[in-house]
Amino acid sequence: MARKFDIRLITPVTTTGIRDLAEIAHLESADLGFSHSMIDIGPPSIESEFDDALAVPGTLAKALQAEREGVDAIVIDCMADPGLKPVRELVKVPVLGPSETCMHLASMLGHRFSIVTVLESVRPLLGNLARAYGVADRLASLEVVDIPVLELHARLEEVQEALAEKALLAVRHQHADVIVLGCTGFLGCADRISRRLLAEGYDIPVIDPIPATVLMAAGMVRAGLRHSKKAYATPVIKPLIGFTIDR
Amino acid sequence: MARKFDIRLITPVTTTGIRDLAEIAHLESADLGFSHSMIDIGPPSIESEFDDALAVPGTLAKALQAEREGVDAIVIDCMADPGLKPVRELVKVPVLGPSETCMHLASMLGHRFSIVTVLESVRPLLGNLARAYGVADRLASLEVVDIPVLELHARLEEVQEALAEKALLAVRHQHADVIVLGCTGFLGCADRISRRLLAEGYDIPVIDPIPATVLMAAGMVRAGLRHSKKAYATPVIKPLIGFTIDR
Amino acid sequence: MARKFDIRLITPVTTTGIRDLAEIAHLESADLGFSHSMIDIGPPSIESEFDDALAVPGTLAKALQAEREGVDAIVIDCMADPGLKPVRELVKVPVLGPSETCMHLASMLGHRFSIVTVLESVRPLLGNLARAYGVADRLASLEVVDIPVLELHARLEEVQEALAEKALLAVRHQHADVIVLGCTGFLGCADRISRRLLAEGYDIPVIDPIPATVLMAAGMVRAGLRHSKKAYATPVIKPLIGFTIDR
Amino acid sequence: MARKFDIRLITPVTTTGIRDLAEIAHLESADLGFSHSMIDIGPPSIESEFDDALAVPGTLAKALQAEREGVDAIVIDCMADPGLKPVRELVKVPVLGPSETCMHLASMLGHRFSIVTVLESVRPLLGNLARAYGVADRLASLEVVDIPVLELHARLEEVQEALAEKALLAVRHQHADVIVLGCTGFLGCADRISRRLLAEGYDIPVIDPIPATVLMAAGMVRAGLRHSKKAYATPVIKPLIGFTIDR
Amino acid sequence: MARKFDIRLITPVTTTGIRDLAEIAHLESADLGFSHSMIDIGPPSIESEFDDALAVPGTLAKALQAEREGVDAIVIDCMADPGLKPVRELVKVPVLGPSETCMHLASMLGHRFSIVTVLESVRPLLGNLARAYGVADRLASLEVVDIPVLELHARLEEVQEALAEKALLAVRHQHADVIVLGCTGFLGCADRISRRLLAEGYDIPVIDPIPATVLMAAGMVRAGLRHSKKAYATPVIKPLIGFTIDR
Amino acid sequence: MARKFDIRLITPVTTTGIRDLAEIAHLESADLGFSHSMIDIGPPSIESEFDDALAVPGTLAKALQAEREGVDAIVIDCMADPGLKPVRELVKVPVLGPSETCMHLASMLGHRFSIVTVLESVRPLLGNLARAYGVADRLASLEVVDIPVLELHARLEEVQEALAEKALLAVRHQHADVIVLGCTGFLGCADRISRRLLAEGYDIPVIDPIPATVLMAAGMVRAGLRHSKKAYATPVIKPLIGFTIDR
Repeated sequence: MARKFDIRLITPVTTTGIRDLAEIAHLESADLGFSHSMIDIGPPSIESEFDDALAVPGTLAKALQAEREGVDAIVIDCMADPGLKPVRELVKVPVLGPSETCMHLASMLGHRFSIVTVLESVRPLLGNLARAYGVADRLASLEVVDIPVLELHARLEEVQEALAEKALLAVRHQHADVIVLGCTGFLGCADRISRRLLAEGYDIPVIDPIPATVLMAAGMVRAGLRHSKKAYATPVIKPLIGFTIDR
Repeated sequence: MARKFDIRLITPVTTTGIRDLAEIAHLESADLGFSHSMIDIGPPSIESEFDDALAVPGTLAKALQAEREGVDAIVIDCMADPGLKPVRELVKVPVLGPSETCMHLASMLGHRFSIVTVLESVRPLLGNLARAYGVADRLASLEVVDIPVLELHARLEEVQEALAEKALLAVRHQHADVIVLGCTGFLGCADRISRRLLAEGYDIPVIDPIPATVLMAAGMVRAGLRHSKKAYATPVIKPLIGFTIDR
Repeated sequence: MARKFDIRLITPVTTTGIRDLAEIAHLESADLGFSHSMIDIGPPSIESEFDDALAVPGTLAKALQAEREGVDAIVIDCMADPGLKPVRELVKVPVLGPSETCMHLASMLGHRFSIVTVLESVRPLLGNLARAYGVADRLASLEVVDIPVLELHARLEEVQEALAEKALLAVRHQHADVIVLGCTGFLGCADRISRRLLAEGYDIPVIDPIPATVLMAAGMVRAGLRHSKKAYATPVIKPLIGFTIDR
Repeated sequence: MARKFDIRLITPVTTTGIRDLAEIAHLESADLGFSHSMIDIGPPSIESEFDDALAVPGTLAKALQAEREGVDAIVIDCMADPGLKPVRELVKVPVLGPSETCMHLASMLGHRFSIVTVLESVRPLLGNLARAYGVADRLASLEVVDIPVLELHARLEEVQEALAEKALLAVRHQHADVIVLGCTGFLGCADRISRRLLAEGYDIPVIDPIPATVLMAAGMVRAGLRHSKKAYATPVIKPLIGFTIDR
Repeated sequence: MARKFDIRLITPVTTTGIRDLAEIAHLESADLGFSHSMIDIGPPSIESEFDDALAVPGTLAKALQAEREGVDAIVIDCMADPGLKPVRELVKVPVLGPSETCMHLASMLGHRFSIVTVLESVRPLLGNLARAYGVADRLASLEVVDIPVLELHARLEEVQEALAEKALLAVRHQHADVIVLGCTGFLGCADRISRRLLAEGYDIPVIDPIPATVLMAAGMVRAGLRHSKKAYATPVIKPLIGFTIDR
Repeated sequence: MARKFDIRLITPVTTTGIRDLAEIAHLESADLGFSHSMIDIGPPSIESEFDDALAVPGTLAKALQAEREGVDAIVIDCMADPGLKPVRELVKVPVLGPSETCMHLASMLGHRFSIVTVLESVRPLLGNLARAYGVADRLASLEVVDIPVLELHARLEEVQEALAEKALLAVRHQHADVIVLGCTGFLGCADRISRRLLAEGYDIPVIDPIPATVLMAAGMVRAGLRHSKKAYATPVIKPLIGFTIDR
């Protein structure tokens, strides 16, 4: 296989520097590489349905551009899965949301999973996604570290400690047997939480959404699978006002 | 009560003239009036997740403006309920989507309802909403007349005939006992379908989404009810790029 | 509109004086009025399936009488919704139960609601209704103030304090984001609970069942909607023993 | 065991002669006997929610009387299970409804069951019971022979033929693998349907509700099991008007 | 009835002496007797999916032998219901698993049941069975006494005390209104737990799985019911390696 | 990465030659290779719960051996997922069942999937798995080509034609928008079905279970994920009779 598969990570926020591909470079291989883009219009971070909604137009534009550039799959870099359904309509290459992917993965790795996320304001959003994805009865609990997305980097030590504490709480009191990190901004934190859980006697997977999702995307690409165009029909072209997303 | 309650209908498409308040003027009363706005940016009609997504930013802007103008409730004029959740975050006045409202109403008026809508491309969207709203097990079927939104007006006779035929099909073969019109562009068609069903021996409610939803909105306003700000927390103000929706 | 719509409240207990229409007089308007009746046979209050069952024959009689008197809709004045289904069979005007109506309303105003009710003995009844109405997965919890229906009036201060405490408990520990008052005898208590919740930082709707339900009934009437006669077929007349409910 | 267990069958209709204990006499044994009563007030047959509701007060009275007479269990002789929950509150001996019992039995004997019942008007009632009993996802279909209860006896041949036809339909087109007879008036018809199904190559249980339910009742009695008094708390005695059911 | 019905209890473990038919001899009657066998190959006790899987081949062999010996029904003596589905395929006589039977019974005796079982390792297994049997939403909680199966006999006093404590916990904090003993090794412990619950004011059924299941099996046999051969088709005979189960 | 990841395919039947690794050799890559084993004891093919049960002991033995040989993940080569749960208890490396994996994949690629499988006898088994995996409400239908596993190879042309016909049926009449091949013996048939669907206007993914599952397994391995040892606790070692699976 001469050419590498190209998985495009689209970070659906406008805060430059928030995502560094180097953090997942170790996942590249002989036939797999990653590329990256950020949206031009939208919010600086996603912590509400409001932010999520405003991230979608920019995500659609970047997804279309990615397909034109020949990427093999698209991963939306946010646990709110902004634009997952409309992007699937717009393009033919596989499109993965980390929330959908990790909730299904979690369902395969154990019986009940808990999601540990950033803020209380994200609780309804993730709860609704669990329902939409059909796994609400496996969601043991949603836990919150109460730290905004844009402060995660600066308060990394505190973040990791809080994640481990909340994960332990879910395992001990909610019968969670799998942990899903509930924000793609937690990239790289899984190992420490795993070790902490193991130290307390719990051999439990901690799913880091971006590594898990890009690798599942690679698997889909290698398997030649993409989403159904009956479920996600390519939209008819109609004249838009204020947006220039023409196929 | 000196002042009339003002229910603002926001039509989330850019096709001017598609909605005429005169069509619901007979629902006004001593304490109830309607006002209307359309979005400035977005798609000409909503027939896909893609259209739906691009309708949301404009709907957010118009909802914020409506609240500032002092309306008492907002009804989003589309069965895709575009932006229902982010709009609820953004404003404090009650916000109703016709799809959510009519699916709950239908659940109260019978045991199993069918939705008759415009195009096959809308089927997944409405099916997913039924699941999200928790009424999927009451959805007897989704039927489609196969006529695009922007042709409804010109092909009214054909539309009405097709709606009646599909409604009958759902009643006879899917055990539907309530019919929901699955597009707000069908406004005014319910009576004819009801009469047709009655002529065939079926005394069954046919829910016309806009009249039903604006009147339920009026009921909520009169009852002093609005959505939970714990479920739909007002979003933190962060600098947006490409959108100017500041609270 | 020369004539007022007449919403008939049927209180399905035999304790005279328990319901005073003056308490909802402020909800009347130019085209909306309320009338009232109580059942002639049945229990003094409804706090069990047993009470509920014995309230139904009297409720059927009063509903038939109401329809003959030309009312536009019927609201059954009890959170057990006694006789909701058979009354819908018997009459053609819309019939609303406050439990069904408020559980659907609560599902539209937030993501998870708690019901605060009178006695532990009512817990299974309300839990079963939530299941029957399809909203069990949105029911965060059932809370109980442990005060019998017939003592509510005399112990009003205590009732209100207990309701607020239990509502706070549900919000804080069960992730409830909407509160439903679980007895129509709590009429008028919602405001104080709302204020208490707000004082603690929770901007959350508290649904007072009777105001909410009569106004939803008014909305249905104005929308020309009534229940499906396919779902609730008018029963065949057969000779009854011990009851005289002839249509 | 000197004394026989006494299972009381309460037929909740006023049509005398509709039930003959001789039809289940072959199920009696050394330690098991049956007794019978009919209600004094109520409808002649149960074919609607209306009939069901009016059968309950009489059933409560007869159940209380049965318990006082020392019966060991009560079986309500109607697939609508009229009064099942209030009767359980009123008495301590086990109370079984044939619908609840047979739906659980059917869930144990196969994967998907169909109910073949009398009239279209009973469809919603049985569908709602399946939902209430938690087995709706195992209900393959409801089939209807379109013959009223009070004509079953006179039109027996036609009834049996229709039952077999509808059962075959459910098996062939709805993937049903268990058949439940949906009216206790079909007592004795199961064998012929079984034979017909077998002749067509389907070795499938056909559950005759009364034999199945009285024998399950006997099993419960022998096991010393009765319903939970936490789930079905004995109601507080309050003065009733129009009914004389005092405990 | 000259001949007694013979219910065969198959204990799917290899620890001889673990089951003594004398413990259920009091349930025999004029037309009902019990017989017993143990598996020849398999695990000494069942406390995991691993144990469960290895118990099945031996159980299949003993079930086939039982049918050939003319038993009327088979009860698998373990709350994991090992081999329930394949055994039903293999034989025509009714086959009951205590877990399936008692979960359905519990659903009929109350609204929410808790299972008190042996070890934490059995929690997922029983939770999965509740889901498979369609009663997961009635399962209030799973409680664990943390005592291995093979120590139950020797530590009987401690077992009974722990069962009562855990049952009380479930009733008080999880709204359980029925208790199911979650291991057939608890045979005989129900009375003491019932008395303890009653002493604390809870009149709640405690289901002892083996007595309940053999009596339900007897009821099925008397009713002439057995499982569907469409749901559990007799398997085609193909040459096996390592097992000699030929029909 | 010097060493290739080794995904072990365990074919849980005793028919030698039924699986040829060459068929998936094109999926190997610089860091990914496949190895294979078959069970020593068990059935020649899996077409029933009976076959499934007898395949498990051999699968456990081969899984333990695979882990000792240092494989990185195990894929069970049968859509019945025989032994999936006990194997996960026994080993620490990830264990995937094609049925579980493909049902989750199908849920991500569309809204409703149909499974096309070999024989009617497999219908209940796959239906129960869909329920156990939590995706039953996305299962549009189960279709059957009526050809036994051991005849698939010899009747390949007929098999492919039948698969395409049944897939089309599901898409046209059951609203399926994703197709899952319901037997790992269909390996290699997906392309032709896809082309046929496309020729009829349906751009729909057809999931070939083995390629999809081994690649998902590879993704899990690369992501460092394995199943929860809290959900699948390693079983305590107890002396077995008739099996020699010692850890």
